[in-house]
Amino acid sequence: MSPNTPLLDRVNIPADLRNFSLLQLQQLAGELRAEVIDAVSQTGGHLGASLGVVELTVALHHVFDAPEDRIVWDVGHQVYPHKVLTGRRDRIRTLRKGGGLSGFSKRSESEYDPFGAAHASTSISAALGFSVARDLLGRHNKVIAVIGDGAMTGGMAFEGLNNAGAMSNKLIVILNDNEMSIAPPVGAMSRYLSTLISSQHFRSIRELGIHMAERFPQPMRRAARRADEYARTMISGGTIFEQLGFFYVGPIDGHDISALVPILRNVREDVAEGPILVHALTQKGKGFPPAESSADKYHGIGKFDTATGALHKGPKGAPSYTSVFADSLIAEARKDERIVGITAAMPSGTGLDRFAAEFPERSFDVGLAEQHAVTFAAGLAAEGLRPFAAIYSTFLQRAFDQIVHDVAIQDLPVRFAIDRAGYVGADGQTHCGAFDIAYLGCLPGFVVMAPSDEAELVHMVKTAAEHDEGPIAFRYPRGAGIGVQLPDEARTLEIGRGRVVRQGAQVALLSFGARLNDCLEARQNLDRLGVSTTVADARFAKPLDVDLVRQLAREHELLLTVEEGSIGGFAAQVTRCLSEGGHLDSTLKYRSMFMPDRFLDHDQPQRQVEQAGLSAPHIVDKVMQVLNSSQSQGLRRA
Amino acid sequence: MSPNTPLLDRVNIPADLRNFSLLQLQQLAGELRAEVIDAVSQTGGHLGASLGVVELTVALHHVFDAPEDRIVWDVGHQVYPHKVLTGRRDRIRTLRKGGGLSGFSKRSESEYDPFGAAHASTSISAALGFSVARDLLGRHNKVIAVIGDGAMTGGMAFEGLNNAGAMSNKLIVILNDNEMSIAPPVGAMSRYLSTLISSQHFRSIRELGIHMAERFPQPMRRAARRADEYARTMISGGTIFEQLGFFYVGPIDGHDISALVPILRNVREDVAEGPILVHALTQKGKGFPPAESSADKYHGIGKFDTATGALHKGPKGAPSYTSVFADSLIAEARKDERIVGITAAMPSGTGLDRFAAEFPERSFDVGLAEQHAVTFAAGLAAEGLRPFAAIYSTFLQRAFDQIVHDVAIQDLPVRFAIDRAGYVGADGQTHCGAFDIAYLGCLPGFVVMAPSDEAELVHMVKTAAEHDEGPIAFRYPRGAGIGVQLPDEARTLEIGRGRVVRQGAQVALLSFGARLNDCLEARQNLDRLGVSTTVADARFAKPLDVDLVRQLAREHELLLTVEEGSIGGFAAQVTRCLSEGGHLDSTLKYRSMFMPDRFLDHDQPQRQVEQAGLSAPHIVDKVMQVLNSSQSQGLRRA
Repeated sequence: MSPNTPLLDRVNIPADLRNFSLLQLQQLAGELRAEVIDAVSQTGGHLGASLGVVELTVALHHVFDAPEDRIVWDVGHQVYPHKVLTGRRDRIRTLRKGGGLSGFSKRSESEYDPFGAAHASTSISAALGFSVARDLLGRHNKVIAVIGDGAMTGGMAFEGLNNAGAMSNKLIVILNDNEMSIAPPVGAMSRYLSTLISSQHFRSIRELGIHMAERFPQPMRRAARRADEYARTMISGGTIFEQLGFFYVGPIDGHDISALVPILRNVREDVAEGPILVHALTQKGKGFPPAESSADKYHGIGKFDTATGALHKGPKGAPSYTSVFADSLIAEARKDERIVGITAAMPSGTGLDRFAAEFPERSFDVGLAEQHAVTFAAGLAAEGLRPFAAIYSTFLQRAFDQIVHDVAIQDLPVRFAIDRAGYVGADGQTHCGAFDIAYLGCLPGFVVMAPSDEAELVHMVKTAAEHDEGPIAFRYPRGAGIGVQLPDEARTLEIGRGRVVRQGAQVALLSFGARLNDCLEARQNLDRLGVSTTVADARFAKPLDVDLVRQLAREHELLLTVEEGSIGGFAAQVTRCLSEGGHLDSTLKYRSMFMPDRFLDHDQPQRQVEQAGLSAPHIVDKVMQVLNSSQSQGLRRA
Repeated sequence: MSPNTPLLDRVNIPADLRNFSLLQLQQLAGELRAEVIDAVSQTGGHLGASLGVVELTVALHHVFDAPEDRIVWDVGHQVYPHKVLTGRRDRIRTLRKGGGLSGFSKRSESEYDPFGAAHASTSISAALGFSVARDLLGRHNKVIAVIGDGAMTGGMAFEGLNNAGAMSNKLIVILNDNEMSIAPPVGAMSRYLSTLISSQHFRSIRELGIHMAERFPQPMRRAARRADEYARTMISGGTIFEQLGFFYVGPIDGHDISALVPILRNVREDVAEGPILVHALTQKGKGFPPAESSADKYHGIGKFDTATGALHKGPKGAPSYTSVFADSLIAEARKDERIVGITAAMPSGTGLDRFAAEFPERSFDVGLAEQHAVTFAAGLAAEGLRPFAAIYSTFLQRAFDQIVHDVAIQDLPVRFAIDRAGYVGADGQTHCGAFDIAYLGCLPGFVVMAPSDEAELVHMVKTAAEHDEGPIAFRYPRGAGIGVQLPDEARTLEIGRGRVVRQGAQVALLSFGARLNDCLEARQNLDRLGVSTTVADARFAKPLDVDLVRQLAREHELLLTVEEGSIGGFAAQVTRCLSEGGHLDSTLKYRSMFMPDRFLDHDQPQRQVEQAGLSAPHIVDKVMQVLNSSQSQGLRRA
């Protein structure tokens, strides 16, 4: 049963709420919150962050003139209320579903999303681009970046602050400080912000008015009159943001619309040069008690009951790759004190939280800082420790230069546990782990592995732990394994050695990673079609099992590689081997199946694999198409 | 004639100067400076930065116990004095030469280089790794990161500060503040540091002693006694570094050994928890008047006369690719107001300085911040401007995630001018532009071009300017073009269309980029050997000219691709085309020449190309080897 939302029903686009009174805005916020809770209870998604910005979203759209004014949301997972207010309410219950709304801000979805985001810390840079372009083009719209305290600790945010703070450009940054990114915050910046709020010199809102009057032409008289009604206050002088050239306003209560509106209005009307930072305090999960009291504030959740907050659990299936990794790492670490774990603000997503529970001294959550994470790991490795950097494939992109410059060139044995490799489902394009085989496979000295199932993952964790000769990575998918028996004992795999899983005669399927199962399924169907098929598991993209590849090439009519990654990855390694060995000079048929050359929208993972043309039936089709076409060519030639 | 260096002659390793008196250390610094000037006058190199840290290097090696204590130099181009003092003086005149010393810190070169660097902003992260490992391993060595004020503005440095500042770990960071990185500094942090030094409350060294006594067990009594001798003083309270959890000491005169030594000694002996930052002021080019008075402080220079500082000029040859790019961009920008230029602290290296001279309002030096540069450009592009992000191939690696997430997924027309693609000579492994074809070629929607000569570059700048449909990149080598006539008028190239440069019959050489000239040279030799050779210039790795590739495949016995890049790049694109078209099923011989799977040491660029096996004679050898081997196979089969 949908919530009762009489005021929200009158709002289709932000212009519809521009003339609302403060009281109406407050009521609207309540209705908007109920609507978001109801929608996410049906779709799952990033609830906590969205609930934390309900009032901020209402106030921004009341004061600013989107889409003319550009509102750039950092990370973009807190935009559900924004979507409801910007013409997308009718589709809000399709969030994260195939064909439905994206779970993040997305340019192609709405003119109210001027810049999409799903990775952290990009908003200040993008907004500065919009803001500088505005000046160059002689326009007068406002540009606002909204960034969380977690994202503010990413190095890129600092680069943006550093550049913006030295410019006369009028950029507005709203620091949405909920003292909570995904996990509880870590790092000095977070501690600093807490200190700023809790223990330094606070002023009354009367003083806030006086402070702002120094800068703004019209003092916040009405706000000042309400001084005693509002407890939230501001600090001036000497904040990091002021030292970096921003005019700092705050902290203010990010849930108090009657405080937000006059302050944002003053910020909007300000004509002085230079950037402004508004420090708003919010609470993740605000207004939904089960979320407020949950440890992760319902950061990213499945469907749930709106009355109790109880999460709907699916049937218990095979363990996730993440949990198998965590168990394996813990098992290795019990035997080897040199093993340490590193996460960049994703302790639960990577399974490092469980490692940390057992080995708190050997576990490091370095914050939203993949670059630092990798080079920190390189330093640890240089001293003889055995660091595992557990980072999602898509986020590891942010540390590519560190992987090249600090790890690969120095041949340091950092272990990369790369979760979320391949398609990731509802998180869509921005989280897809597409490129890691290509961007690691090109690096001299790197070992690149992928387990074909969760049992293989166990062996690869041990193999990585014991590999001190240089960098080593293993990539594995999001979600559950295929349900194979886990081994009692982890084995050390021989580096650069694959395996034949099924022997056939005519066709060879060479899989790298978790699509092996599709190859096996394809083989059954090919057998029925009279095509005798070998299935091999490469295990290593680099160093490649050259003997295996050449044997497969020599003994079969068709060799087909299969991987859930982009062009330039495993297939490129196999091609080099075949081409240099002269195997392509003969009539061997050689094909590669990898991700298509487009970004796939969010959907169920299996449907993404089907859209990508990488499932078992596609493998069968590919094989038959090649065999038939060569047959007909042979006929034509004859 | 070598400088007279009686004290330096007694120092082979740092232990040799541990017992030197302050007076001896001062004399040693003078001799060391003379030695470095003399060496670099013969080799060329990064003189300015090295001269700026002579006293700091002497003081560090006097106070700390390297190699047990780990000194991690950021960027690593200022390590020439360090190399002289750490057993490498006998080879200091081989700097940057093939087989000689690297121009940067390098692990494989010396145990006194615990962590190599040549990109900026990595030292705090690496040093924190060393420092945390020290604690975990129960050791007691000190760990010191030395980082410049320019590198401190890179986001990664902030990530390191943020993580270290919240830990109890005892890390020592020395901020080597010369108010000058490569170009004059930009950004708010730089301005902040200047303010910190020049306009805030200064204290006498007596007060410095008192301040340090709060923290250090043994007050700096001797230092305090010398209070009035030394003008340099310190500031306490409220610096950014203190807000981020560091104990801040400074600023101190980084050229005053008698100030440096007692302060570093106290820092060394400190037993309190948490990191320390020592803020040392230095002067780039210090002690060599021609460098001090030069605008770029002799940042990176060729050979010169030690008496006058006059640079030895080589013969004037063809214009550099960099300057052709700059001229072309300026020409386009005169016709199109939407064109803007972005550099990440490399205005002269990229040629953007000349663009900025003519279009100051449309030129943006964003500081050492490639991540921010790319997303800032994406924001500009989203508003309809035509941004050119001019970034070296190797440094663009640092923005890989921004390229994927902010540019490619959103299909925004950011233009990437990628200088230093391929081997770069004396700067070696860390600056080699190896991976860009692979890491851009895997991204859906990207256009990836490479000019085969400087005239083609002119056309590609115009082509990029006019391409509004999505991201577009062009990569070009370091150094001079091949001397072709530049076109009077730039042309717009058809996207995805290559060209046949010479028509032959038996063998096709398909080049992507500046090795085309080697292909043409190879063709001449192949002709002499009776092998009729087609040479084609692909121009585009993506989208590939499929018609051209298939035509070459159909009409020749051997198709050989040539590129100066890693595996997974152009060759992967061609392979997909050939394999999907069934061209590999026939007896076509297909080979690819790309960079070998190893990092090449610094040397002359042409020698690197030869070591890589990518020069004209290698192309000839490759062709003959394939043709001969297939002939003999044919004989065996017959």
